[in-house]
Amino acid sequence: MISLSSIYQARDRVKPYVVNTPLVRLQNLDESAGCKVYAKLENMQNTKAFKLRGAMNKILSLTDAEREAGIICSSSGNHGQAVSFAAKLLGIRATVVIPETAPAFKVEAIRKHGAGTEFCTVDDRFIVTENLAREHGYTIVPPFDDELIMAGQGTIGLEIMDEDVPFDHVLVPVSGGGLIGGVSTALKASGFEGRVTGVEPEKLPRYTKSLEAGEPVQVESAKTIADALVVNRPGTSNFEVVQKHVDDVLNVSDETMLRAQKMMLMEGKILAEVSSCIGLGALLDRKLDVSEDETVCLIISGGNLGFEQLELLEDIEY
Amino acid sequence: MISLSSIYQARDRVKPYVVNTPLVRLQNLDESAGCKVYAKLENMQNTKAFKLRGAMNKILSLTDAEREAGIICSSSGNHGQAVSFAAKLLGIRATVVIPETAPAFKVEAIRKHGAGTEFCTVDDRFIVTENLAREHGYTIVPPFDDELIMAGQGTIGLEIMDEDVPFDHVLVPVSGGGLIGGVSTALKASGFEGRVTGVEPEKLPRYTKSLEAGEPVQVESAKTIADALVVNRPGTSNFEVVQKHVDDVLNVSDETMLRAQKMMLMEGKILAEVSSCIGLGALLDRKLDVSEDETVCLIISGGNLGFEQLELLEDIEY
Repeated sequence: MISLSSIYQARDRVKPYVVNTPLVRLQNLDESAGCKVYAKLENMQNTKAFKLRGAMNKILSLTDAEREAGIICSSSGNHGQAVSFAAKLLGIRATVVIPETAPAFKVEAIRKHGAGTEFCTVDDRFIVTENLAREHGYTIVPPFDDELIMAGQGTIGLEIMDEDVPFDHVLVPVSGGGLIGGVSTALKASGFEGRVTGVEPEKLPRYTKSLEAGEPVQVESAKTIADALVVNRPGTSNFEVVQKHVDDVLNVSDETMLRAQKMMLMEGKILAEVSSCIGLGALLDRKLDVSEDETVCLIISGGNLGFEQLELLEDIEY
Repeated sequence: MISLSSIYQARDRVKPYVVNTPLVRLQNLDESAGCKVYAKLENMQNTKAFKLRGAMNKILSLTDAEREAGIICSSSGNHGQAVSFAAKLLGIRATVVIPETAPAFKVEAIRKHGAGTEFCTVDDRFIVTENLAREHGYTIVPPFDDELIMAGQGTIGLEIMDEDVPFDHVLVPVSGGGLIGGVSTALKASGFEGRVTGVEPEKLPRYTKSLEAGEPVQVESAKTIADALVVNRPGTSNFEVVQKHVDDVLNVSDETMLRAQKMMLMEGKILAEVSSCIGLGALLDRKLDVSEDETVCLIISGGNLGFEQLELLEDIEY
């Protein structure tokens, strides 16, 4: 299981490449949210998502021989962008395996940092990644189920502690568990006295089900608007951390996430991915037991979206 | 001329009602802007614009008899919202005089805080305001040409100084001069060593022309997309302050403001009024003499816009 010291080591390692993102008070959301709202803005991170923290920590921990051979990952999203950007900064050759169904703007975002791309079907992406890695001696940079990745994401928790706001709650979007695994470890092992709560899409309750079962279980794949939260089974190394450090996991519908995204934009003045607004969604639906005097920190995990995606919000009322 | 101590007094006075807004680093804009970009986010202020600072300082300085009689202002925009909101908080009767041409969402925003509204033609608004004030004994809360208003806006400058970032430049949107008058006084009288630069719409160069002339001159009224920056003559009390403390005034086209607004949204992840993006516009057009190692603070003056206004950005390339 990852340790607090591994997260401090990650912080030292990634410091030259990763931004200490703003943590802002969004009092214009308080009335709708039913509490005092703060947001940790990873949509303002380099590559516009928290994923750079973990990817950078992993890549900076490679041996010289591994760096020389190159790296590979499978992701059409923020992890792919992070790996491509990190590789460029460090002068390492990177390949990103992308499902043929990925939208053009995501492919473009990965390519602009210089990574090579390989296309395959969605179902084949992991086997293609492994085959290419074996063939060329590439190191795989996994999206979440890895202790160095998780420790990198955990640096967000250290930054939250540094702000010295005595938060009653921290709400974290959950997919495979890399972000919440790292953040919950950083907070709880640092003596954080509030609660750490994960929030996952209603259609993909993999952590809710796995925590009930006491072990990682796979839920049926389902289409959700939260395109950054589509993992259907907790990572093995992430699950044990979540089981230990996370107080609760809630779930939110696609409809509520869209309402939350529009409110974050129009009232909070922050543009975030719909997946990143899931925590605000939990507040809007009164899923968290919180009073209006309590402070809640929302981790806004990313902000990569195309302008045309704003059309989805046109008819949404919040 | 306003003094630094009047701004400190304003800060003490408005403190319970006004938020110390976030000042954030937006490194994702650096490459396009040609410098290190920071933003002071008055779009996250209560009523979503800096105008509350000045209005609150003015209203809190009224005598009991003046409070009892009520207040009035002429504005369909952020000043009208600020006066309405302040009056509600303080239990004072307020009337806002609105041109018939004002869009419905602005009228609604003023009414929701509880102010009464009076409609008239654009040309008649000041005379209607004065007549109503005389008739009912209302105190007029002017939008900019007033020392208490200017001192209130100046509290932004104190907050910028508190952040201890040694800025090379602070860029301020300019209309009548209330914001830049207050901010430049707060900065320069506090020993700020950088430059304070105003930015006004190319179509309404009232400060550029007035500074050339050495006295306030009126420029021809013109339609600009910057609907919060439409004053065509500097305020008398504001002009003398700007003349003393402001280093330069630049101007920016409507087209560039739209590009800047879209970039602020998609790259900076901040939703701001088009008028508030004029400072970024000056950077995009390389109107400021700045090097890439220098730090620039943009004052993002407001964020009141309807979702439908985002359509204007659809075909803008940045």
